[in-house]
Amino acid sequence: MGELFIVGIGSGKSNSLTGEARAALAAAQLICGYTVYVEQAAEMFPGKAVYATPMMRELERCHYALAEAQKGKSIAMVCSGDAGVYGMAAPVLELLPQYPGVTVRVVAGVTAALSGAALLGAPLGHDFCVISLSDLLTPWETIEKRLRCAAEGDFAIALYNPSSKRRSAHLRKACDVLLETRRGETVCGIVRNAGRDGESARLLTLAELRDTEVDMLTTVFIGSSQTKDIGGRMVTPRGYGL
Amino acid sequence: MGELFIVGIGSGKSNSLTGEARAALAAAQLICGYTVYVEQAAEMFPGKAVYATPMMRELERCHYALAEAQKGKSIAMVCSGDAGVYGMAAPVLELLPQYPGVTVRVVAGVTAALSGAALLGAPLGHDFCVISLSDLLTPWETIEKRLRCAAEGDFAIALYNPSSKRRSAHLRKACDVLLETRRGETVCGIVRNAGRDGESARLLTLAELRDTEVDMLTTVFIGSSQTKDIGGRMVTPRGYGL
Repeated sequence: MGELFIVGIGSGKSNSLTGEARAALAAAQLICGYTVYVEQAAEMFPGKAVYATPMMRELERCHYALAEAQKGKSIAMVCSGDAGVYGMAAPVLELLPQYPGVTVRVVAGVTAALSGAALLGAPLGHDFCVISLSDLLTPWETIEKRLRCAAEGDFAIALYNPSSKRRSAHLRKACDVLLETRRGETVCGIVRNAGRDGESARLLTLAELRDTEVDMLTTVFIGSSQTKDIGGRMVTPRGYGL
Repeated sequence: MGELFIVGIGSGKSNSLTGEARAALAAAQLICGYTVYVEQAAEMFPGKAVYATPMMRELERCHYALAEAQKGKSIAMVCSGDAGVYGMAAPVLELLPQYPGVTVRVVAGVTAALSGAALLGAPLGHDFCVISLSDLLTPWETIEKRLRCAAEGDFAIALYNPSSKRRSAHLRKACDVLLETRRGETVCGIVRNAGRDGESARLLTLAELRDTEVDMLTTVFIGSSQTKDIGGRMVTPRGYGL
């Protein structure tokens, strides 16, 4: 029986992979995943067999990878960032009981909350939440409730999928929920294409963020009440009282 | 003027480093950090000058690293896991204005929430919170409030610093707060020494977790209401309805 590795490939650039992720990709006979991530992996490990499906076809990809592993192959399913954070590890493990004998191993990676935070400074230096604004698979009411709880708990927050063509108003709606309890001057940051060509990062206030357009390649960071702008770096202190 | 890289070294084993972290350590003239992490880095990059301070002496270490960078050296400050998540990036950036001319770059790494999650399955497959139970620098009331908000928002939760000699009752207290709203059958997991020799991971219920002793080398995962035990793997579904 084969093994299926669910591999977080970070930004998709070679230097953001861990050694463990490199080893899993090097050993794989077949690389599966979303088209863009498969192309990134294939560039790092040329000559491998690949199987790619577009967005919204995630489950097809999972079934294919599990079936190929059941035939005895060593498979790598690639995910952007980490394998588990809004990644393929969960659906693959949910389907695994249908494929007896297959071994699944999850290989962690640097998720966008961490790579984006590094570019901004240290916005996640204390307790934080990670929330996706995509309502494709989650009711908006659930998202809104989580935003409200995160604000009430004074967490720093990383927002994934802050916008898309279909939901361009989501970030504004999210900011409005946060502004019920957080000050408009709250230090925020946006990072686009972290670790990729053309990466950019900038700080702004929550009030400004509300009226800012972002795209799917962006990760948004909302500071806690303690977060500071220190010379253009977004820093959530750990509490040393500096 | 020199550069100071704040580098997340993951578990401390070579295969958990990203390529970017490897490059920063290879280029450094001096490696600074907490004694244990400096030893791990020195094992991977032998022959480097090192400067280590024990726990509770973090600021001394930051000042030393910044002063050495100001002299023109290339310095790597190593952190376990990620550089920003309860790491040294925040205090270094807070002190940076005292050291004009020094450039600080933060190099992200795989934090224990991600490496531990990979061992358990996919506990952080949907929105999650990261909370430290250490009250050394944070009032317990703040921690308790965040636990309550995280529970109310039905987040999956990763708990850092769940226990220590000085605060052996913290995990029990935290579980009691969560049990105000979460069911005792909530799927939880504990991971010890993720990515290191002697790593271990196991699932248990929130009611069982309350009466379990853990140590400082452990990361604790609390499921959301949706989290499942699938053949011994802890999985928080993304919402595909599988």
